[in-house]
This record gives sequence, C-alpha cells and structure tokens, in this order.
Amino acid sequence: MADINSQFEIGVTTGPIRGSRKVHVPARTGSGIRVAMREIDLEGGEEPVRVYDTSGPYTDPDAVIDINAGLPQLRREWIEARGDVESYTAREVKPEDNGQLGPDRSGGVPAYPNVHKQVLRAKPGANVSQMHYARQGIITPEMEYVAERENIGRAALETAPDGNSWGAAIPQEITPEFVRDEVARGRAIIPNNINHPESEPMAIGRNFLVKINANIGNSAVASDVAAEVDKMVWATRWGADTIMDLSTGRNIHDTREWIIRNSAVPVGTVPIYQALEKVGGIAEDLTWEVFRDTLIEQAEQGVDYFTIHAGVRLPYVPMTAKRVTGIVSRGGSIMAKWCLAHHKESFLYERFDEITEIMKAYDIAYSLGDGLRPGSIADANDEAQFAELYTLGELTKRAWEQDVQVMIEGPGHVPMHKIKENMDKQLEACGEAPFYTLGPLVTDIAPGYDHITSGIGAAQIGWYGTAMLCYVTPKEHLGLPDRDDVKVGVVTYKLAAHAADLAKGHPAAQVRDDALSKARFEFRWRDQFNLSLDPDTAEQYHDQTLPAEGAKTAHFCSMCGPKFCSMKITQEVRDFAAKQNSDSYLASENIKRETSPQEAEEAEKGMEDMSEVYREKGEKLYLPSDD
Amino acid sequence: MADINSQFEIGVTTGPIRGSRKVHVPARTGSGIRVAMREIDLEGGEEPVRVYDTSGPYTDPDAVIDINAGLPQLRREWIEARGDVESYTAREVKPEDNGQLGPDRSGGVPAYPNVHKQVLRAKPGANVSQMHYARQGIITPEMEYVAERENIGRAALETAPDGNSWGAAIPQEITPEFVRDEVARGRAIIPNNINHPESEPMAIGRNFLVKINANIGNSAVASDVAAEVDKMVWATRWGADTIMDLSTGRNIHDTREWIIRNSAVPVGTVPIYQALEKVGGIAEDLTWEVFRDTLIEQAEQGVDYFTIHAGVRLPYVPMTAKRVTGIVSRGGSIMAKWCLAHHKESFLYERFDEITEIMKAYDIAYSLGDGLRPGSIADANDEAQFAELYTLGELTKRAWEQDVQVMIEGPGHVPMHKIKENMDKQLEACGEAPFYTLGPLVTDIAPGYDHITSGIGAAQIGWYGTAMLCYVTPKEHLGLPDRDDVKVGVVTYKLAAHAADLAKGHPAAQVRDDALSKARFEFRWRDQFNLSLDPDTAEQYHDQTLPAEGAKTAHFCSMCGPKFCSMKITQEVRDFAAKQNSDSYLASENIKRETSPQEAEEAEKGMEDMSEVYREKGEKLYLPSDD
Repeated sequence: MADINSQFEIGVTTGPIRGSRKVHVPARTGSGIRVAMREIDLEGGEEPVRVYDTSGPYTDPDAVIDINAGLPQLRREWIEARGDVESYTAREVKPEDNGQLGPDRSGGVPAYPNVHKQVLRAKPGANVSQMHYARQGIITPEMEYVAERENIGRAALETAPDGNSWGAAIPQEITPEFVRDEVARGRAIIPNNINHPESEPMAIGRNFLVKINANIGNSAVASDVAAEVDKMVWATRWGADTIMDLSTGRNIHDTREWIIRNSAVPVGTVPIYQALEKVGGIAEDLTWEVFRDTLIEQAEQGVDYFTIHAGVRLPYVPMTAKRVTGIVSRGGSIMAKWCLAHHKESFLYERFDEITEIMKAYDIAYSLGDGLRPGSIADANDEAQFAELYTLGELTKRAWEQDVQVMIEGPGHVPMHKIKENMDKQLEACGEAPFYTLGPLVTDIAPGYDHITSGIGAAQIGWYGTAMLCYVTPKEHLGLPDRDDVKVGVVTYKLAAHAADLAKGHPAAQVRDDALSKARFEFRWRDQFNLSLDPDTAEQYHDQTLPAEGAKTAHFCSMCGPKFCSMKITQEVRDFAAKQNSDSYLASENIKRETSPQEAEEAEKGMEDMSEVYREKGEKLYLPSDD
Repeated sequence: MADINSQFEIGVTTGPIRGSRKVHVPARTGSGIRVAMREIDLEGGEEPVRVYDTSGPYTDPDAVIDINAGLPQLRREWIEARGDVESYTAREVKPEDNGQLGPDRSGGVPAYPNVHKQVLRAKPGANVSQMHYARQGIITPEMEYVAERENIGRAALETAPDGNSWGAAIPQEITPEFVRDEVARGRAIIPNNINHPESEPMAIGRNFLVKINANIGNSAVASDVAAEVDKMVWATRWGADTIMDLSTGRNIHDTREWIIRNSAVPVGTVPIYQALEKVGGIAEDLTWEVFRDTLIEQAEQGVDYFTIHAGVRLPYVPMTAKRVTGIVSRGGSIMAKWCLAHHKESFLYERFDEITEIMKAYDIAYSLGDGLRPGSIADANDEAQFAELYTLGELTKRAWEQDVQVMIEGPGHVPMHKIKENMDKQLEACGEAPFYTLGPLVTDIAPGYDHITSGIGAAQIGWYGTAMLCYVTPKEHLGLPDRDDVKVGVVTYKLAAHAADLAKGHPAAQVRDDALSKARFEFRWRDQFNLSLDPDTAEQYHDQTLPAEGAKTAHFCSMCGPKFCSMKITQEVRDFAAKQNSDSYLASENIKRETSPQEAEEAEKGMEDMSEVYREKGEKLYLPSDD
C-alpha cells in the first residue's frame, strides 16, 4: 500500500495527504499561536472537515524540507522567554555511544550534519517541567497549543454526544486553563524536552483524545538510518502521536540524532538499551554511572520521554518463574538479570530520585516501564504484573513530589475479560497518571495478525481510560516492520483510538464518522475516500472492482451493482416519508410490544399519499450508471 | 498471501494445512460416527494439539476431490434411517431461475453436471427439523457429531479456566444430551437441510464455540462461478463455519448448485435476492407466489438457512427517514420499497406461518434478517432497529411453535458503548435464540480496514453472547472481496471468535494459546507457525527479516537479535528461581502495599544461592546463532 500521491525528497514522503490541505489555526486566545491542522474539502456544498494532524511540516507544500538541517524550532522562543534555562556545551560523543565506532566511522551511519552543540538545561535550582509551571498556575504556550489542538471541531457542536467514559471528566470545551489543571494534577502530560524545540505540543491524558505511539528503530539484525527517518515521517503522516526509537546495536546515538532533529512529534526511548550496548551487552556489568551518563546524553539530544523499568524489583523476579512466557520485556529482563547477578535491589529503583533530578532539568517525562508485563494469555493479571504496577504507583508519587511528569506503561497479552481490571488497578495505584499500553493482545494464536488481536484490546482499554496506545504491527513476534507494516499498524491503532473516543463520548469524535457516512449515503465516493484514515488504500480497493473514473461518481457500488441499490430506496423513503411524523406510527416507548392492528391500520393510512406520489413517479430500481 | 503448500486441482485448493494432519475421531458414544478434526504435530516431545476443523475433505490427502461429482453424502444414511422423508422429482429449473438464461445457455455458467434430480422432503404431516427431534427427546447422529466436535481438547483439562460468560451456561463437557437440550430450547441450531447431506454437522449457540460466516457470491458487476466455488473452499480452509451465497444477477441457480454440492459447511442464502431477479429487479412486482416458488427451488437444492426479512414491517419504514444512512440492508430495502409501493404490510410477515411450513419439511433454519440494521454510528440502536428486533422475537416464538430452528441477525455499525445493549435486548426479545451479527463496525472512518473496525466489535459482541459472527473483508463498502480478502476476513473473524471464547471461559479455548506461547518461549519457530491461524503468513513474515533456514531453529528473533534475548534470561530465572517459593517474597494479597525492608532483605537472602550458581556459570547474554 504505497502512498500514491507523494513525492520523495531525500528519502522521506512529503506532500499533502490526498484530498486535504494543511491549515494553521490561530488560537482563540489571540496570543498569535497558530496550530497545525488538516482540512478536508468536500463536494456537494458540504462544509470542510478539520481533523487532528500529526504529520508536521512534511504535508505542508509551503514548508522547505531538508532532513540534513532538521525542522524549524517552533518552541525555541517559548522556552527561552521563560528565562529559567541556561545554554551549555553538550557532552562529547564517546565511541561507546555508537557501539565503539572509531574516528574513521567505518561501519557507522553518516553523522548528523546539524547537531545542536549548545544545549539547554534548567538553571541551578530551577524546574522546567510543564507540571511545575502548571502547579505555579502558569499557562504555557505549550498548554495553549494543546487546548486549541484538542478542541478541534467542538465549536460547531450544539450538544454533547452520548457515551460511557467510565468516570473520565471530558469537558465540552478544552480551555488552556483545563489543560493546565490536568497537567498540574498529573492526569495529563505534555512530553517536550527543552532540547527538542522542533516538536508540536500534544497532551497524553484520559480526558483528551486517545493517542497512539509507533515504535521504530534498527536492531542488531536489520534496518538502517535512512529507513528509520523515513519510517518516522511515514508513521506521523498516518497519525502517530509519538514515536519511540528502540534502536539497538551500533549507531544508536547518531540514528537518534537524525530522528529527533526531524521529528515534529515527541520522541521516547528506553535508555537501558543503549546503556547495555555500552557494556558490551552484559547486563551484570551495568552500573549507575553508565546509566546516568546515558540519560544525560539522551537528555541533551532532546528525548521527550524515557521508559525506565524501575518497578522491576528484586523480590518480584522469582514471581515470574512459573509463567508460561516469563519476562518478555527487554528492559525488564535486563534489570531482572542484573538483580539476579548481584542479588541486589535494582539501581533504577534505588536511584529513582536522582533520575528525577535529571528529568526536571530538561522536562523529560517518565514512562514507567512495565518490565513484568504478561507475554501470553496464561500470564495475564498475575502476581508479578500487579506487584510491579503498585510499585510504579509509589514511584509516580515520588516523581510528582519533584513536579516531574509521569505516564505508566501497561498490558501485553490479556484476554478481554481481564482488561478492565488492568485499567481499574492502574487508576487506583497511580493516582490517574496517564496509562500507556501495548495492545493488549486478546489471544496468542494469530501471529501475522497481531495488529488486529492487539487492536481489539487497544480499543477496549482506550475506552476504559488508557491515554495512549502503543501500536503493534503485523510483524509482531515474527520480524521487524517495514514501511507498509508501519502504516498498517498506525492506521489500525488510529481506528482503535477513534473507536475509544466515540465510546467515551468525546464531544467532537463523531463529526468525522457522520461526514463520511453522509458522503457514503450520497455516493460522494471521493469524499468517502478523503474522509477515511487512509484515502489511498480506500480508492485503490474501490478501483480494483470498478476502475472506471466514472464509477467514482456513479450512484451505485460494486456490492449491489447498477441495477439495484438499497441507498437509493432509502432516499425515496426519506423524500416521501420525511414529511410524515414517524412517531405517529410507534412511539419509542411502545416498541417493546408488537404493533396493534389499529397502529398498523393507521400506518397504512398514513402511507397512502406517500405511495400515491410514489406511483405517479412510477420509479424503478434501475439507476443511472456512468459506465 | 497465497497459500504456499497447496496444489490446485480443478481450481480449488487441496492438501493439508501446513504442519497438520486430518484425523477422524470416533465418537465416545461408540456409535461408529467419526468426526473430522485437524491435528498439529509439535517438536520437542510436546503432545500434538487437536483443533476444530471446518475445511472438509479438501484437506484430507486420502479424499478424492472432484467438484463435478460433489462431496460424499456423509448424512444421507442418517436422514433416510429416520424413515420420515420421501423422495420426489425436483422442480424443473425455469429460465428465470438463472436470469432468463435460454436453452443455448449463452451468457450462462456451465450447468452443474451432477444435480440431485430426486430430492427429499418430509412425508406428509412429518417434521424433519433437528428441533423437532430434540423436543421428542431423540438424540440424532447430527447431535452426536456436534457433541464430539465441540468437546475437542476438553478431555485433557483438569479445571475450568476463568472467564466471564455474561450468564451463558457453558458446561465443562459437551454431551450429546446437552446438544439435544440446547436445540430443544431453541438456544442452539444445527442448520442442515436434508437435501445437503454433504455437510458436516455443526451447532450455532451461545453455549458452544463462537462460529463465523463468510459471504461469497457473484454480483451483477463482477465474479464468476469457478471463482465462487474456489472462494467457498478457500474460506472453509481457513475456518469459515458456514457460507452465505449472496449471488445476484444471472446464473444464481447454477452458481448455488456448484457451491452446495461441494460445500462441507452449511450454506445460507437471502431468497429475496433471487426472487427480485425473477421479477426483473422491480421490488413492487414481487409476489408471494414468486417468493414461495423461490423457497421451494432453494430448499430442494439444499440451502441450510434462509435469511428472511420478515421484521421489516410497514409501520417501521418511516422510522428510517431521519437516519444518516437510512436502510442499508438490501433485503430490508427491497421489502421497504414493496411496502411503500403497495402501502401494505410485508407479505413475509403476513405469510410467515406458511414459510415455516416449508422450512420444517426440509429442516431449513430461519436466519431472521435485520433489514433495518444501522449503517452508520449515528443510526445505532435507534427506534427502527429495535422495533424490528422485537418483531423478530415475536416471529421466533411463532417458528418455535412449529419446531423450526431460528437464529436472529443483528448489528452493523455500533459504537462500543452501545454494543452490549444489542445483546441484552436480543436475549430478552428472542428467548435466547442464537444471535448472528455483522461486526459490528465500531467506527465509520476506516474504509479499507473494516475487517478490523468490525473485528473489534465482533470480538466484544461474541464475548457478550453472540453465537455466530458474519465476517467483513477489507473491501467492505468499496468493492467485491477477492481470494486474499476472503482469507484476511476469515482469519480476522476466527481470531475475534477465539478471543470471545477465551473471555467467556470456554473450557478448552486456551489450550491452543498456551501451546503456541510455550513454543514461542522455547524458540520452536515451526511449532509457533503451525499452531497459528495462518501458518503460511506467519512463516512468510518471519522469513522477510530472517530468511535463513537456520533462523527457524535459532534461539533468538529479529526483534532483539542474536546478541541479547529476554526469553533466554527468563529461562535462567526459571531454572534457578523455580526451586524458590515465590510466595515467600510477597503473598498476592500483600502486593498492594510496597515491599517492607524485611521482605526485601528476606528476598535478597533467598536470592543468594540462585545468584551463586549463576555466577559460577558465568553466563553472558550472548546466544548461539545458526547464521
């Protein structure tokens, strides 16, 4: 499913998503902040539909894209205007940062040509986290940006749609003050390292739109840097709200630099992966000093959130011994191995407050890792998993004491009847800190289709209150995702997140469904394609059965053919019956009992004029076809 | 995703599904009935795993496949042995049965070479429905077959797994008497027309495994008969429990003959489609006589269940006028149009008891059609939909008065928070008659991915109690599914149905998940592939990253690479910690509070010998790689 209408510049996909335009909407606060959105023009005099846009400048025809220079620094001014940061010369890159890459760089990827040598950190004693500002009562430009971005489409709404939000507190309108309050409570985070000013602010929280993350990154076995930058651009084009760089092997530092400088979305990492590489892959040789140095290295590059597996405590490790699939988290197993080798408590747990000191100096958010997540249906919701979860709750409160933003990682493989317990325990244990889950996969038996087994669980846990869903691609458990796999994973999670927004009763969510369904009903094929999550694939599938251009304006589809069409009949029902008051036939409270003879008679009578007008027209079921 | 290891004979796929063997298991009743199943052999001395098998003789190397002759008549003896049927000469095929096909058959498909000219029906006054036998206390061979088939794997189980069945009554063991009782109550059906003796008996009911249906059939716009027979064989190969032939246009009669004579699963149709063709596509020209003649025509061919939209009553039609997508069911809109044109109550509703007379003479099950199902999120759970549902409940009881089997069709487009209401109302209105739903699709915005938007809803409603899920392919709303789309749709619904079985706590469901996860944990790659729903795709995806044959036995995967592997560490944790009693660290009721210093100390102490053994071994994280 390659993207039809995109050109390739320096290996990344640019150009508008078909049928839509990039727009920059001024914040209603009048502060001059302009928020990037995507607007889809419709036919038949329909109002254009605005949709949330994660694609960054790459879909803006007016933007000059040069991945060697990196993206414009949207947030730079906002950060400096606060006057609480100092500039300093970044830590020198060491050979071990790139897997012992020598000065000749043989076997290495090209070094990034435009590294920020001067980087920012909080002045001594200062705290530059969005949570800290929020708790001071300060509304930052980042919060304003988020408010405008999340508000999309709500202005037009008269009434809130129904839904069951399971106790979330989703307002009819998102104000900057609401964003501030949610961040202050720790119920939402805005991950944006002060050294990643290229990113467009976004929020992750139970009372905002459900977000999705896409994992990229090379491994010891495959992939290269150009492909990873392209995957990042490609994933955000289709809707990834954040990206995680899970690179291992060599070139970790340089690959990350290429990705961050060109990413308009927050970038997360698992620092222990790189730390392990620095000690030759030997977990027991890991030390606090190596780990701390890695945190500084990545903080200066601009990583927006760190997955830290500080909840994998020594006493929990043996709880995994009886599992069918033991420990399946890489970070979790690295720390388990370290704990076993030294028969010591995890240094991540013991040094947690020192880690927090680093986080607040750059405004990096915690993504507290679920190192003991279940890797199979048999292991779901077990003692080890929940023991870790309650420790993550304890650590959340410790991070909050220093005003550092936190989200909590969860699930893995969980059968449907055990999903809600995960959400309920997380809310209870972690004080409503945003939940960020992988899937969950609701069965183990479909490798090759695990974007779907996990999309089923993701939609449900998103409905229950999970703030961000970590995507799974069709290659899960089998191999590394290619470009097509990344797109399928992103679109699958986008639809799962949207289904969750609908079920939660998120005010503006249904606007897009209604616009698409109306287009479908009125045979505005192009509008149906353009309003979909993947216009290219929708049109390709249509054309496989009816390639003719005429068919795109035809008043029929290949399922029923030109001869007969159910939609057409409905139009007739609507035309003639709309005048009638359908309530006169059956009041909704009466539908439980069958229609009485009187009602039927009354109905017949009421139908008569409809039917006469109808007979006059003498319509057939044959419809005009353009081919 | 073509099937790698299949040969093509006369255009259909035959040969075993990779890594498995067809077995015929004698019923424990000793009656001599042998039930077809599929057995997957495993490496490493693991017991083979038996799985439910819908593929029929096509996957049996010992079977002689000749689609011109049709399948062996497995049930013929059972039917005749009951002594309540008579043989007679089938109705002559009329030109209108195949769209006014002339004697020269120009424009027609090849006539089926082995039509059953002599067909069966109940002797005067007799009732040959499985429900009738069940209510007489008779356990038929069909019921025995179903019991053995549904019992798969349960013998080996000690304890029932957990789950939440929402009030279903799933027994630890399925006995023939249990099947009889469920059929007698109307809580399950065994669709098997006495003129389709080629079919292998299967049950559709809330207390049995969740089933899936695949729709095939040509339309006025595309497709041909050979492709449809191949799609039927292909769909059942991957797990379709029943097939619906939704053909329209010409050649409907002959296409259906080709499909039924070669189908080992029950075949359903929507007779109104063919009746409409017989009157030139003009709904208002439909008559009871044309419809009745079509029912007889299809009954004699062996259709196992009929979708009858008898719930689309005149008074309900105007209720759809205010909808975003009106009436999207073809059968529903045909009847709505008829009602409008004649301003009369539906003849399907008024002649319902006469239709039932025909059903019981051939043992055809009702699939009461949801002609007013919602076609968009906006229309979900509205007055029209539920008015029809309660009428279907009324008709269910009328069919049961004549001991005729019934299932109820449902959903369409429904957001997650409105799904359960559909199930609850159906159970209440229809006396627990099996629910058979399309999806539901949980959002409208993902054309091209509607197998997934609907798979999400299908897994949930299956969990809540739906007995059979009607698949949706990636081409839904866009075009006609090809062979690959059919496979993706079937596998997606198979995994959704299995996820529902797991969540309901279906006793043997988790056996396959556990076997696959154990194989994954032990790096038995081939076993992981073979235990999956689609071994061919799983292996292809694996080979795209690690093509080397050696990689299939390697103790690593492409996600972590040969250098580091989390599974390996778990093995070490297991080896050394298994001896420890993990309960001594934290009793599960204590995990809500953090570990006390004493507990941590105790843990450390307990860890020491583990760690010493470990240090002696001096293991690294490097693992042997075969390439």
